[in-house]
Order: sequence, then structure tokens, then C-alpha cells
Amino acid sequence: MHYKLTFIGFGNVAQALAQLLLRKRWELQERYDITFSVTGISTGSHGIAVNPNGISVNAAFEVLHSNRSLDLLTGGPIPTRALEFLERSEADVMFENTPVHHDTGQPAIDHCRMALDLGMHAITANKGTVVHGYRKLTELARAKNKKFLFESTVLGGSPLFSVFREAMPAAELASFEGILNSTTNIMLSRMARGESFDKAVAYCQNIGVAETDPSNDVDGWDAAIKVAALVTVLMDTPFTPQQVERMGIREITPEMIEQAKARNERWKLVCRAEKVEDTVKASVKPELVPMSSPLYGMEDSTSGVAFRTDVLGDYSIIESEREGIVAGPIPTAYGLFADFVNAAKGG
Amino acid sequence: MHYKLTFIGFGNVAQALAQLLLRKRWELQERYDITFSVTGISTGSHGIAVNPNGISVNAAFEVLHSNRSLDLLTGGPIPTRALEFLERSEADVMFENTPVHHDTGQPAIDHCRMALDLGMHAITANKGTVVHGYRKLTELARAKNKKFLFESTVLGGSPLFSVFREAMPAAELASFEGILNSTTNIMLSRMARGESFDKAVAYCQNIGVAETDPSNDVDGWDAAIKVAALVTVLMDTPFTPQQVERMGIREITPEMIEQAKARNERWKLVCRAEKVEDTVKASVKPELVPMSSPLYGMEDSTSGVAFRTDVLGDYSIIESEREGIVAGPIPTAYGLFADFVNAAKGG
Repeated sequence: MHYKLTFIGFGNVAQALAQLLLRKRWELQERYDITFSVTGISTGSHGIAVNPNGISVNAAFEVLHSNRSLDLLTGGPIPTRALEFLERSEADVMFENTPVHHDTGQPAIDHCRMALDLGMHAITANKGTVVHGYRKLTELARAKNKKFLFESTVLGGSPLFSVFREAMPAAELASFEGILNSTTNIMLSRMARGESFDKAVAYCQNIGVAETDPSNDVDGWDAAIKVAALVTVLMDTPFTPQQVERMGIREITPEMIEQAKARNERWKLVCRAEKVEDTVKASVKPELVPMSSPLYGMEDSTSGVAFRTDVLGDYSIIESEREGIVAGPIPTAYGLFADFVNAAKGG
Repeated sequence: MHYKLTFIGFGNVAQALAQLLLRKRWELQERYDITFSVTGISTGSHGIAVNPNGISVNAAFEVLHSNRSLDLLTGGPIPTRALEFLERSEADVMFENTPVHHDTGQPAIDHCRMALDLGMHAITANKGTVVHGYRKLTELARAKNKKFLFESTVLGGSPLFSVFREAMPAAELASFEGILNSTTNIMLSRMARGESFDKAVAYCQNIGVAETDPSNDVDGWDAAIKVAALVTVLMDTPFTPQQVERMGIREITPEMIEQAKARNERWKLVCRAEKVEDTVKASVKPELVPMSSPLYGMEDSTSGVAFRTDVLGDYSIIESEREGIVAGPIPTAYGLFADFVNAAKGG
């Protein structure tokens, strides 16, 4: 079947997705009977390309690389609003990757709602859409017989939500523990090797994983948002980041780290959630992790979660960055790609 | 939709599966629109129950617990051959869990073939069927528009094959490394704590995870069979356990273990496979694992695999046994259960 794809937001991740789609074009056709064309690309500062008959992705990349506007590729007037853009694209699938307000999940939630209303699958890497819009968007998707999917919001594109959805039918999640914010994990790993907190923060800012104001990571907000997303979806219990008991890593001193080392333990920013009856308790806080814990070995940018269900032994999923071919935005782009294939398969 | 289920082999795992199906009956109906009845149970030494109108599973358990023959529950003559049994059951799904010859995969392969020929899904926990029959059974299943599934053959029921099949579309597996035989891992963990090889073997025999002749585990055969299964399925390359370079753990001395400890390393029976162009190289052998490796923390009965693909960072799946509710055959039974739901969903 042929799918028309449209992109709202076309930064690093969305561009990597477009390239991945081109690279996997043959496999999509052979293995999944999927062909596609791109009918819309909406950027923040480089214009809008929209054409229901298809846009050349390579032409779009050329325009962007020469710092011109994508408006060049649009026949007729340029849409001025998201709804008009989506309608004009006549797409079957919308990929939403705009900058998001963590407090509200906007404008990503509105984009997803419009796309679903127009009968498109809505696929996003925006955590805010899950935390603030999961129930409503999922209900709307079901009513429209479409999918609202968001694999890339936690563990950066590695299969996690789809593992529960597709591979663990009827399993009940009782609790989980994990490391979900790799920025603080890099900091703690470096501090355990003798670096000061300030230097570790500067390092993370330098390699681009922490922002100028690092509080979103350092104070545990990013981890709390991910915990809220996991609880909301996998424990089927609406949960906000504010409901997560939260403590960041600012209080961890070199002395504490030395003491931990002497006992063969490590400080980790540990995420936890547990469901008892219909109540969920969740926390993000620094914990002393012993060598026997699966979290002990998750160093630097490695992250992962151990899940406890009613049907299996503890089941852990761990994602480790690696140098070379697969780095930067590619894994996140792959999560969006996998969501697209699953939506197409009706999974 | 209603499914008639039949069991060939009704030992611990199949019995746990029957109980799990009863326990999850409501969820199957609510979430997946699946209802079921059991129409056949064939045991090695406790007779055969077959009735296309349904057998009471509770009655079957009562008969077995009082050490009587299931023949009691069969109206009319007792089938004398597997094919006759399967035909009489009129089932939609066959669960195959008989004792298997590792050299040939029989009689499990024949049972799967017959079931598929009769238009049933074939689901098994038998590794031999995958190593010796994967291609033919998969082709037959495809021709019949049915499924041949085997989640429980590696990592004891934890999602692995289905993660690749359902959650990682179009990913190419380049290599993997892992610990796939938990018996030798228990032995090595105990030896690292000072126990002799002979005592560690005796311990494993005592708790029922090693056989009287422990060579299947100790010499790496079980691990090699699992490696061959993973290569055959996930790298789409037919591979036999004999093609796996194989060395067991008999040569590991207390001195070697002490030396490793002094360097913060551990001996592990490591499974590896790598695909270069169209050629796969695979091995099972003791390796010194440094603390930085994800395999280092997999102690005792924990097992797991790290996968390297063209689209993600290293993605690891780890399974840890745990005390309490979920133990013994339940995880393996859950793998069969999940296969059933996936087959029903057409996944």
C-alpha cells in the first residue's frame, strides 16, 4: 500500500528519519508492501513545502543545505496554519517533531489531534504529547481507526512501548526501576572517575547533551517526565511529572562518591514506579546501587529499565550508545520509522 | 474469535500454560476478543483426551493428579497416532511440548508439520524444531497462512524473537553477544564464590537445572543450539549447532578464577555471532569479561543478549529469574501464551 507522509518539524531527528526512509525504501516494499511519498514538510524557519502529488526529498535537502526556503517547492500559496498545511498534504501519516512546551505538550498535541481528525496516523518523538495527551489522543485514534504512536519518547527509539504492546500481551506491569536520563548518568559516571560536578555539567553542555540551563536534567525533570509517560501508558494510570517524587543530583558530594566506591557501590539517579491495587507510587532520586544490581553496570550514556510483571522473571531492556554508524539522531529516527511500519501493519 | 487448542506433550510447561490460559481468560476476551476451548491433550504416559466439543481442563487436571489416564475423557476409540489425534481435535492451534531429540528435532518437527498441514498454528518451546526445521516450517506456515512460533526456545519465554519480528521492523542484525545457558552461569558464579566445579555441578543437579550427565550444559551444547536458533531466525542464515565454534567450561580452574577476580574480571560462557556480508561466524566459549561489559553483571541464573543492528545503539534484553510468584515453568509457558495471542492477531 502507498502512504503519503508529512512532517511537522524538520530538525535533526526528522531529517534523519527522511534519510532512513529513503535508505530502507526497498525493504519496506519487499517485506511490508509499503511504498511512500512525502507530501509535506513544515519547518520552523525554513518555510513549508506541501504538494499532495509528492515532494522530492532530495530536492528538499538541497534547498535546506543551501539555506533557502522550502516555500520554493510549494505550488500555489503557502499555508499559514498547521491545519491548512495538513489538509493540503493529504497525508496518511504525520510525523510531529516540533519544539514542545513540557508544561502543556503544545503545540504537538494540537498537531496530533488535527492529524488524527483528518484520518492520519500521528507519530511523535515528543514526550509532552504522551504525558499531557495520551488518553485523549489514544481514544481519538481508536475512534478514527488510526494510531497514535510515540516509541522514541523513552530510551531514544529503542523498542519499549512496542515490546509491551506487541510482544507481551496480557502481561500486567507491577513495577519498574531504571535509569532514564543519560545526561545525569554521564555526569555521575564522570564524577565517579574524579571529575567535579561543575566540570561534568560543562562536559555535557560541551557535547550537546545538556542545555545552558542544565536543570531539566540535573533536577530530575526529564527523568520524571519519562517515568510519568511509562506509568501513564504501561500501567494505564494517568500520571504527571509533578506526581513523581523527585530529587536531582545536586546534593551528591565527592565525599559521598568516594564512600560509595569504597563499598563497591555507585550513585545513580534511579527511576522507580510501583502499582499497588489501583495506586501508583513513583520516584526519581539518587540511590546507592550495589554491584549486584542490573543498574550498576549502566554507565555513561547507557540507559535502561527492568520491568516486573505477573508472567515473567524481571525483564530488562538496555540501550547503549555506540560510536560509529549508529549515533546522534538515528536511533530516535528509527523509533519513528518503526512506529510508521507498525501503524501500517495495523499493529 | 473462538480458538480450539490442542496440546501434544503435557508436562510442567504445558500444564502451566493451561493454567495461565484459564487465569487470563477474561483479559483474552476483553482485550483481544479471543475465546478458547481445549479440544485435545496428548501425554506421554497418562493417556489422551480428545473431543472437538471441548474438554474440561479442570477435569483433566483432576484425572492427572489422581494418576489416572486421560483416556477417560475421550469419547470413542483412543487415537493411536499423532496425526489421528490432531485431526480428531479439530484444533486451530497446536502447542507442541514433547521431549525432543536434539540431533533431529523429532518428533516435534513432524507434529508441527502435521498441525500446519491441517491448518493449525504451530507453537513450540522445542529448540530442535527451530534449529532443524525453521525454514521448512516457516514456509509451510506461510503457504497455509498460519504461524509457526517459538518464543520460548531462547531466554525462556521472555520476548526476543517477537521483539525483532514486531518491534524492530527492517532492522538488520550485524552481531550479538550474550549469556544463553543459565546452568553454566550459575556454576561459574558459584565457582567465583569459591565452590569447586564438581560441587557447583552437583548443586545444579540438585536444584534440577542440570541433568545427571551435565555435558549438554557444561560442554556448551545447549548454548550452541540457542546460538544456532538465533542465527537461523534473526540473521536469516541456516545454521547448525555444529557450525558454532564451541568450548565448554571444564578447563576453567580455581586459579584462573582467582586471577580474574584480582583483575575485576569474570569468566563467562559467552555466546557470539557476527554476520559479515553473507557469512556468519559464531562461537560459544569461556571469556574473561571486564567490569565494563554488560555481561559482567549477569550473575547466577540471569541471562541475556546484546544486539547490534544498523539502526540502534546496542540493544540488550536481559532476563532474571526471581523468587515468588513467577518461577519455574511460568515464564516459558508465557512465551507460548504470547505466541498464541500473536498468532491470533495475525502478528
